[in-house]
Amino acid sequence: MKDTVPTITTGALPASRKLYVTGDTHDIRVPMREIVVTDEAPLTVYDSSGPYTDPAAEIDIASGLPETRGGWLQARGDVEEYEGREITDADNGFASGARLTPAFPVRRAPLRATGDRAVTQLAYARAGIVTPEMEFVAIRENEGRTEAYLRDGEAFGAELPDLVTPEFVRQEIAEGRAIIPANINHRELEPMIIGRNFKVKINANIGNSAVTSSMEEEVEKMVWAIRWGGDTVMDLSTGRNIHNIRDWIIRNSPVPIGTVPLYQALEKVNGIAEDLSWEVFRDTLIEQAEQGVDYFTIHAGVRLHMIPMTAKRVTGIVSRGGSIMAKWCLHHHRESFLYEHFDEICDICRRYDVSFSLGDGLRPGCISDANDEAQFAELHTLGELTKIAWAKDCQVMIEGPGHVPMHKIKANMEEQLKHCHEAPFYTLGPLTTDIAPGYDHITSAIGAAMIGWFGTAMLCYVTPKEHLGLPDRDDVKTGVITYKLAAHAADLAKGHPGAQRRDDALSRARFEFRWEDQFNLGLDPDTAREMHDETMPKEAHKVAHFCSMCGPKFCSMRISHDIRAAAEQREGMDAMAEKFRERGALYVPAGEEPAQ
Amino acid sequence: MKDTVPTITTGALPASRKLYVTGDTHDIRVPMREIVVTDEAPLTVYDSSGPYTDPAAEIDIASGLPETRGGWLQARGDVEEYEGREITDADNGFASGARLTPAFPVRRAPLRATGDRAVTQLAYARAGIVTPEMEFVAIRENEGRTEAYLRDGEAFGAELPDLVTPEFVRQEIAEGRAIIPANINHRELEPMIIGRNFKVKINANIGNSAVTSSMEEEVEKMVWAIRWGGDTVMDLSTGRNIHNIRDWIIRNSPVPIGTVPLYQALEKVNGIAEDLSWEVFRDTLIEQAEQGVDYFTIHAGVRLHMIPMTAKRVTGIVSRGGSIMAKWCLHHHRESFLYEHFDEICDICRRYDVSFSLGDGLRPGCISDANDEAQFAELHTLGELTKIAWAKDCQVMIEGPGHVPMHKIKANMEEQLKHCHEAPFYTLGPLTTDIAPGYDHITSAIGAAMIGWFGTAMLCYVTPKEHLGLPDRDDVKTGVITYKLAAHAADLAKGHPGAQRRDDALSRARFEFRWEDQFNLGLDPDTAREMHDETMPKEAHKVAHFCSMCGPKFCSMRISHDIRAAAEQREGMDAMAEKFRERGALYVPAGEEPAQ
Repeated sequence: MKDTVPTITTGALPASRKLYVTGDTHDIRVPMREIVVTDEAPLTVYDSSGPYTDPAAEIDIASGLPETRGGWLQARGDVEEYEGREITDADNGFASGARLTPAFPVRRAPLRATGDRAVTQLAYARAGIVTPEMEFVAIRENEGRTEAYLRDGEAFGAELPDLVTPEFVRQEIAEGRAIIPANINHRELEPMIIGRNFKVKINANIGNSAVTSSMEEEVEKMVWAIRWGGDTVMDLSTGRNIHNIRDWIIRNSPVPIGTVPLYQALEKVNGIAEDLSWEVFRDTLIEQAEQGVDYFTIHAGVRLHMIPMTAKRVTGIVSRGGSIMAKWCLHHHRESFLYEHFDEICDICRRYDVSFSLGDGLRPGCISDANDEAQFAELHTLGELTKIAWAKDCQVMIEGPGHVPMHKIKANMEEQLKHCHEAPFYTLGPLTTDIAPGYDHITSAIGAAMIGWFGTAMLCYVTPKEHLGLPDRDDVKTGVITYKLAAHAADLAKGHPGAQRRDDALSRARFEFRWEDQFNLGLDPDTAREMHDETMPKEAHKVAHFCSMCGPKFCSMRISHDIRAAAEQREGMDAMAEKFRERGALYVPAGEEPAQ
Repeated sequence: MKDTVPTITTGALPASRKLYVTGDTHDIRVPMREIVVTDEAPLTVYDSSGPYTDPAAEIDIASGLPETRGGWLQARGDVEEYEGREITDADNGFASGARLTPAFPVRRAPLRATGDRAVTQLAYARAGIVTPEMEFVAIRENEGRTEAYLRDGEAFGAELPDLVTPEFVRQEIAEGRAIIPANINHRELEPMIIGRNFKVKINANIGNSAVTSSMEEEVEKMVWAIRWGGDTVMDLSTGRNIHNIRDWIIRNSPVPIGTVPLYQALEKVNGIAEDLSWEVFRDTLIEQAEQGVDYFTIHAGVRLHMIPMTAKRVTGIVSRGGSIMAKWCLHHHRESFLYEHFDEICDICRRYDVSFSLGDGLRPGCISDANDEAQFAELHTLGELTKIAWAKDCQVMIEGPGHVPMHKIKANMEEQLKHCHEAPFYTLGPLTTDIAPGYDHITSAIGAAMIGWFGTAMLCYVTPKEHLGLPDRDDVKTGVITYKLAAHAADLAKGHPGAQRRDDALSRARFEFRWEDQFNLGLDPDTAREMHDETMPKEAHKVAHFCSMCGPKFCSMRISHDIRAAAEQREGMDAMAEKFRERGALYVPAGEEPAQ
């Protein structure tokens, strides 16, 4: 029997408290984080961390999070409970006995749309309905602002409003420019929006360990990733127990959960790609839709005729899903069942509101393969599939690369906007060089910040272990913080009307030697504090008007304060001197103006 | 008595050996690093690490490195030995007894130009002379290539030749577009070049510790920084022993050493900025020029009328040198002695060939202050000073920011090119957001990669401890590797004709599961190997045709190999099918072409 000591990280971030902003129209409570700052108004920031950072929340992962959305769904009156698909041994990779992760204790009947209705946010938006989800994300995006803080930046055609209104959200969704991934069976969700005219978001990937993991461990991976800022989490688990683990994760997740259903389908056919079939895949989609997965990566853009285009590449096909489908296509010498049955996939997704993340199975895996024929051929197909999905009222985002040198990044965004009709772009990095294994969170943060600036709506994180091994807890945190800073740099450069508030608050703290505020306003207060304490551990140093780098004599900030005082005095003197010169000139006889 | 156990890191990097390429014209041996690769030709890469990575070199820091340049200088016949300035107690901050770092054991008479000659690389270049230094850097830049590997990228007006010739180097220096920082008293130097039409370089800062450091420790900081790729090192030491420590560093440094002479001058007046004078400063310049400092940061662009422009900034003046000079200017209410005596500073520098790094004393210290009036006013003055220095045959580069959001980075490069007449730009980052203390190597690597792409010639590194504390050994390495990858990303995007060789070699290794090659071709083989071993420690796994991330079933690269084989077969089939269709069409009766 496994020890069930809870390992879930809870508690507020330093100097932070949870706020809930209520809706004007709907019964919603939108979570935000307020950072307390010395001698200034507190700073309210976006909060992806869910109830785990609310000291008032009772966390019991065996019960799951409160089903906040239950009432909203019921009120719409377009869904029905039903018995649901029977869970089979295959769903958990035939794990049994001690190796079987226990099922989530609360068994709940799944919901689906009545009839062949679309219960998607896109369908509602097109019908002119502002859902609670839409109002929720509108309030959330404004981070407590009531006006624009600054209008600056170059947005490359993105149009960020001063304040996001529920109606603006509705329009963006109706136009396909944004999605709210929100499966009707994920009632624990705190909705969030992915789109070019909103804050840039980040995704963190998690997956089960090779050794049997406890449910706590798996849930904790998600909790840890969102604590530091993960806006969505993809569960990329393979092998045993993935059904049960996914249940534990979704029931405890306030953020959208994405998956690649192909991974589980492949497990069901014992890892033989050729044995995959539409029937097995369809069964897996329904299984996961009933559990509440919010978005599916579907590699339907990998078409038979594109596969030879990858033969001359340096690194071939590097997407797992892409390579599995390519192998299937070649073996059967036909188009994939994903492509051929795409409309049926849409029919499933619209009944649960599972959003599409159309996978880039042919993304480049190295600098040399960037922006090649295969990559863009697939992108064009993803654009065609987008139209099919939209015709079925399904929400869509498009996955993008990968490995791309800086000068080829912009073309990716432009091609995507053009061929995918402004559906949100969701990229993995891109990595801007291949030569730094161990530092690929950084090689990719460069590309991520740039493509985010150009218009990518969500950035999939890369950890330091990319290409080398499985990320541990520290790697996940490093990846999340790195991507948060890249997304924020993108928001700043786009001219997001609220982004610079936090930079300015932190910089004021820095200039005024408010060390604690400087730590607390940063993305990772704990690490900042630890690093400071390594050199200047004493409490007294936290109020020191200098720091360990330069010491008091060389402290530019301290000297700047002196200068500011002196300059203000001088400004008065200069103004007087100027007046004197003006008056002097007035008394110079005509024709005798002084030389310059 | 201090224990003098040597702490200097020596030995080759993994799978690497030292090569020396000899000159065609001059008696020079240009060091390179050859990385051995399985089943491929070895890859020759740029090598900044000096004799420390040459197992054949005998390292004795009390003797210093061989004076490679001695013969070159003698052959030019334009320098003279002289007694040199007397070393005073003030030079070492009045350290004495056990607190005094011993003087470097070998006392050598300094060199200076005879008469009022300019012995600078710029003077030679203008006179049409190709010096050994110029041939050295030409060979070095080509990294063993005999032709361009690839021509790709967007260079924004930079013109990188397929191969660098000594004559090209001469022209670039003559035009002021590049510098070779090479004080005639730094005879141990392996010359390197800084310019927009060459590989992007990086600088690492080091400085003495507050506690008394041993000479070995100080030398090791430099050795460690260049081992991982530092192209130049700035010694930013303050306080006691800085003269003696600098001697130890320069005598053992194969890379150019830069300093901010103002720091030492301030020590000589007990840290009272107002007490600084031209005489103290001049004395310090000569002291350091005689020691062999290769470039001086001089904050001569901070002018009196600009100081009030910083009064409304969020973070005022953040440059140490800039704030010290601003304080001096305000106190005396006059232009700084740096500005007023700039031509005399040039007269000193030309006699030793100390290059200028014209300091950006008014660089922005936060996002809010980026690209403001003060910053650009100073930049324009730096352009004026560049012309004065050039008139005196002095080599010049220009320092740049700092903190700049992505959308304002390009303007920095454009303003610099325009107003500083294409003198090389040398920037600190820039940091693209203020909100990630603890991760500022990353916030700044984003800006550094971008501005390097746009044309910045050298990037000053930022470590994770920026704003928080003094970097330790790990931080220095992290900073150097991060900046190497940013510089390389810039080279790739500029279309450097050799840059992608390494990406491609590493990616081929990745695709072919040559794990050891993948580690060894990376910027930090040790970290890559450690990370891999954390998940898959066994030796057998290093030849595994899959890795720990996905396992064999989900290995896209493994599947890609199958696909490649199948696709090649298929291609043959397709070609035949195509032929058949063509032939078929030939036999279709006219007017009965088959439908599409």
